[in-house]
Amino acid sequence: MEIKVLKPILGANDQRAEENRGLLEKNKIVAINFTASPGAGKTSLLMATIKALREEFRIGVVEGDVSSAIDAETVSKEGIPVVQINTGGACHLDATMLSNALANLPVDDLDVLLIENVGNLICPASFALGEHRKVLVASVPEGHDKPHKYPVMFSESDAVVLNKIDLQPYVDFDRDKFYSAVNGLREGAIIFPVSCKTGEGIDRWVSWLSEQIRSEQRA
Amino acid sequence: MEIKVLKPILGANDQRAEENRGLLEKNKIVAINFTASPGAGKTSLLMATIKALREEFRIGVVEGDVSSAIDAETVSKEGIPVVQINTGGACHLDATMLSNALANLPVDDLDVLLIENVGNLICPASFALGEHRKVLVASVPEGHDKPHKYPVMFSESDAVVLNKIDLQPYVDFDRDKFYSAVNGLREGAIIFPVSCKTGEGIDRWVSWLSEQIRSEQRA
Repeated sequence: MEIKVLKPILGANDQRAEENRGLLEKNKIVAINFTASPGAGKTSLLMATIKALREEFRIGVVEGDVSSAIDAETVSKEGIPVVQINTGGACHLDATMLSNALANLPVDDLDVLLIENVGNLICPASFALGEHRKVLVASVPEGHDKPHKYPVMFSESDAVVLNKIDLQPYVDFDRDKFYSAVNGLREGAIIFPVSCKTGEGIDRWVSWLSEQIRSEQRA
Repeated sequence: MEIKVLKPILGANDQRAEENRGLLEKNKIVAINFTASPGAGKTSLLMATIKALREEFRIGVVEGDVSSAIDAETVSKEGIPVVQINTGGACHLDATMLSNALANLPVDDLDVLLIENVGNLICPASFALGEHRKVLVASVPEGHDKPHKYPVMFSESDAVVLNKIDLQPYVDFDRDKFYSAVNGLREGAIIFPVSCKTGEGIDRWVSWLSEQIRSEQRA
């Protein structure tokens, strides 16, 4: 008698994330999920990224926040299609929220979707959205010990952007310790030290990101 | 026939929080719950607070982190009784975790318990621990819009410590906007601008905290 081996049924969120991924690929959209602490500078990084890539790619944005539409308003002023998700009390975006956002975006006219997750270094790590890459935004004033304290998020991110390097002279931040902690969690992790304020390092970050987008488009 | 009106049954966490509160009061311990974003400077504030108050009060500490014992080691070097709680994946401390920590602290010999919650501006707001006061630690480089984005935590905190004011000259932080946002969420909110690095403002914060402790001891 044949023994049936059933694949584990995906959890509801993972199943919805796969549907999102299907919709994104059908529309040839590459999606990037940005996570960070509150105040690390996700929105500033998004704005710098939009400025650098908007000639090459048609960009859309999803903003996730517990409350307020401050970030969506900032993005909208640039004439970029944007949907604000207010999670109410929830501390992360989930795949259903992204699915609802996709239904409100002009998916026929986008190449890239930048998703700004809720400011939280813990919970968003547990909820796949259907994204192609995860990018963690850390910042110098938060301190070099953050990878040790929030290891899951760091270990699951394809790249780490270390923002606010212009504040390095004024704080106790050991960049070597930060780099080795990140590399200990994810071997060969790519780290981009940047200052969204001065523009330092943005070129290298944007060049990596556009190569990731082109690589997914070819896939 | 008499109609019985049942009080709503407390949730499991609230019930445990009440038990913690009973244990704290039986032992005349005043407990303060510190919440913040990752990297706002909770541990630095705790260290400054311990230094200022250790002559007057016998202090114990509970450190909450997803992972690592970095903060507990820092506290322990000062000869202060400390328990580190590693939450695993959980993004907040709950009352059962505090109950376990209390069982591992010399409760007969403490006047004050400083509880450092997990770095997260969202979820810890939903879990009472049995504490007497909640203090939110914000920091200047996080930006003045944080109260709008994380309103529940700000509205539930008895005091807000605004740390890293020494970085004010180097960042775009509008202190008036921050103050009015905090006051909009909690009228008459007490805000303490401090720098744990230079010591500026610590006196006023510590003076308020010790008055809160004495007031609870008299109650």
